[in-house]
Amino acid sequence: MEMYLIKLDKNKTIPLYEQIYNQIRDDIIQGKLTVGTKLPSKRKLGDFLNVSQTTIEFAYGQLTAEGFILSIPRKGFFVQAIEELAYVKKTKEAPKSLPVTATNIQYDFSPGHIDTRHFPFANWRKHAKETIDESSKDLLLLGDPHGDFELREEIAHYLYQSRGVDCTPEQIIIGSGTEQLLPLIIRILGTDTTFAIENPGYPLTHYVFSHHNRQAIPIPVDKEGMNIDYLQQTAAHIAYVTPSHQFPTGTVLSAGRRIALLNWASAEEHRFIIEDDYDSEFRYTGRPIPALYGMDQGENVIYISTFSKSLMPSLRIAYTVLPKVLLKRYEDAFIHYVSTVPRLDQHILARFMKVGHFSRHLNRMRTIYKKKLQVLLDTLKQYEPMISYSGEETGMHITLSVHTETTEEKLTEKAKAVGIRLYGLNTYRLEKRSGTPSFLLGFGGLSEEEIYDGVHRLMESWGISLS
Amino acid sequence: MEMYLIKLDKNKTIPLYEQIYNQIRDDIIQGKLTVGTKLPSKRKLGDFLNVSQTTIEFAYGQLTAEGFILSIPRKGFFVQAIEELAYVKKTKEAPKSLPVTATNIQYDFSPGHIDTRHFPFANWRKHAKETIDESSKDLLLLGDPHGDFELREEIAHYLYQSRGVDCTPEQIIIGSGTEQLLPLIIRILGTDTTFAIENPGYPLTHYVFSHHNRQAIPIPVDKEGMNIDYLQQTAAHIAYVTPSHQFPTGTVLSAGRRIALLNWASAEEHRFIIEDDYDSEFRYTGRPIPALYGMDQGENVIYISTFSKSLMPSLRIAYTVLPKVLLKRYEDAFIHYVSTVPRLDQHILARFMKVGHFSRHLNRMRTIYKKKLQVLLDTLKQYEPMISYSGEETGMHITLSVHTETTEEKLTEKAKAVGIRLYGLNTYRLEKRSGTPSFLLGFGGLSEEEIYDGVHRLMESWGISLS
Repeated sequence: MEMYLIKLDKNKTIPLYEQIYNQIRDDIIQGKLTVGTKLPSKRKLGDFLNVSQTTIEFAYGQLTAEGFILSIPRKGFFVQAIEELAYVKKTKEAPKSLPVTATNIQYDFSPGHIDTRHFPFANWRKHAKETIDESSKDLLLLGDPHGDFELREEIAHYLYQSRGVDCTPEQIIIGSGTEQLLPLIIRILGTDTTFAIENPGYPLTHYVFSHHNRQAIPIPVDKEGMNIDYLQQTAAHIAYVTPSHQFPTGTVLSAGRRIALLNWASAEEHRFIIEDDYDSEFRYTGRPIPALYGMDQGENVIYISTFSKSLMPSLRIAYTVLPKVLLKRYEDAFIHYVSTVPRLDQHILARFMKVGHFSRHLNRMRTIYKKKLQVLLDTLKQYEPMISYSGEETGMHITLSVHTETTEEKLTEKAKAVGIRLYGLNTYRLEKRSGTPSFLLGFGGLSEEEIYDGVHRLMESWGISLS
Repeated sequence: MEMYLIKLDKNKTIPLYEQIYNQIRDDIIQGKLTVGTKLPSKRKLGDFLNVSQTTIEFAYGQLTAEGFILSIPRKGFFVQAIEELAYVKKTKEAPKSLPVTATNIQYDFSPGHIDTRHFPFANWRKHAKETIDESSKDLLLLGDPHGDFELREEIAHYLYQSRGVDCTPEQIIIGSGTEQLLPLIIRILGTDTTFAIENPGYPLTHYVFSHHNRQAIPIPVDKEGMNIDYLQQTAAHIAYVTPSHQFPTGTVLSAGRRIALLNWASAEEHRFIIEDDYDSEFRYTGRPIPALYGMDQGENVIYISTFSKSLMPSLRIAYTVLPKVLLKRYEDAFIHYVSTVPRLDQHILARFMKVGHFSRHLNRMRTIYKKKLQVLLDTLKQYEPMISYSGEETGMHITLSVHTETTEEKLTEKAKAVGIRLYGLNTYRLEKRSGTPSFLLGFGGLSEEEIYDGVHRLMESWGISLS
């Protein structure tokens, strides 16, 4: 048995047993200690290094557990046969932090922003406190893969009251967002289906289709929404629509088109409509238009919606209502599926809805958004007819058109230079157009003052003066 | 102008304006009111129905907004041209509630259950209360698609301290579970990759591969873990392994195999190891074995782990550490991706970790689980050699083998008859075997008393007596 050098640094924060373990392990890996070598006994090594025998015992125990050495009773510890670790030059250089783009954006007209100042933190916190409690022990374990029943009951109730959707909780599946639910829906519709999508439309949906190698035919959108005559002439089986507030144009699908679309779906087997009912909660004129799902006489509508706008984008709770014909198919396809939505959050939301906080919040926010919209429209009106707008019936954004020779891109740049972030309509088109520059103006995340100031500053940056 | 019958029920809970709206709308859809028909004036209809003019205004406003009627100033309201809705027999029969299987299961040896009695509700609630607050306004909006930086910092710190994984927060991506992260990883590895999976192995992973049409070659697992010699002879590029506690056998990948596996990965370009480090938190003998990621000299290991066992399965927070070479690819592929993890939860967890509650919780639970395991082993030992077990070094389950002529299925049935749920090893194999019946015995969700009683009752049901 040859003696073998181990360097210990008693001032290091690394425990002594770990220093010993590390050195022996490294030496075995690097081949300095060869297979079959007998290690010094625990007593001997302890004496030699001037550390307790327990320290050596810890180190040897660890090496044994990991298979580097073998303990043979009454014989000692022997280095085991392990393959030599191929040496690859270590490049442990830390990846650079993502560049933090210093922005001077003062007014962000994002259509996805909500009013965060009026979120009912106190109520939400109250329900969170009540939910996160010893009595919720069972909520720590995995629940129903379709979502917790209590929440699905509240959603069914809400949908019936507010959207004219008559469904049972069993038809509802809770997910982490439209982007997460859509792939599941796509899968149960089969691989040889062709989708019809709105153009311009919601880019995330387009990416979901292309990521899943599904054919998607763009259908033009006009002032009444998706052109159903055009749809009729395609080979599409599934139409994905945003009827309450077409994204991005803001158009409400007209009554005639709604009926034409439902008729299209019922005309042939295996046709379905995916109704993405985003932005339906905030309608500013009249009662909300009932969902297509509610008008459907067959079982052709797959309804999908989210709490992103009505509560918060970061909650990541959305849901779909499947027609009965698809429910069985869904259950069979996703027998091993685990829900992606935290159960405590599902129960906080269910309680929040059950005591009426959700509908009160919606009513309150509708008034707040309506006032913001009014400020936006009043301010814009002063610049007509150089500009015009549409899509002001529902939702959190309108569409602004600028009657000028300049391009959308140049106008976006000019706005950015004065601290305004804009979202051009071309971004949402499958092919860019050189027509009238148009922008989405989201007003949810800005205060009334910011809207007023922002619009004036925007027009100034474009050289458009008050009319 | 013909007079036209509307029936109102003043005792109904449906508002009068809505009853009027509904009837006119239905009559238009059903063609009873034809295109061009002039509706009675608001005053006249109000008088006739004995309701206020405002009520009629509401109903007409709604019909106008939805395009069913058109208001021509100083002329009146006219029915619009809409396509007739094809009548499909309404089958609004509610789907049956999922059958609630009445179970008499008293002892569930599920490997996925945790100890819910010792969850630190008070601490978790405290951090939730502090997080759900006006000062967190910005957390309502969407955050970094890779996960919030604060949480990724805490995870990087934890991984360095406890798992020997040296990475930056930028390399970490937060997701809703292994099942949700794995498809993202699969996608950046390309479509023409072949995966090597453990057999027996974790079924959810197998389903992820087959759902995404990826070829997966089963590699046998023995007492040292995945057979690397076997792996070498296959065309696989990516090896998916559970080295800390092979699922389901409970084997720890031996030191020799670890090195052989790393060498396999570095021997050719584009080879990667997906290290699913589940069950690594609770090791009962010696220091935890460092992750493969920490031993890797190249950049061949994709690390993946979850808070399911260490905190709660229903939290739905998992994470992956990508080697730098894949990070750029990930960013390019998922430029439009939105995180599925709620931001408030991410921040509750980050705070919980930051103040040391997480590591204290782990230490506490390690002691609790170790005691449970000890009771399980002590009780089982009394039935040797009719039974034997393995996989007791780490994690929340051991593997029990029963030396009998009976089949796994029959033993499972016998256990069920006396209120015990068992998980047979065959369930996790790609092909059933008729060898020694083996079971996963999870002990996390049962108390020490339940473990003791459950094992004795189980053995009695099998007719195995104390030795």
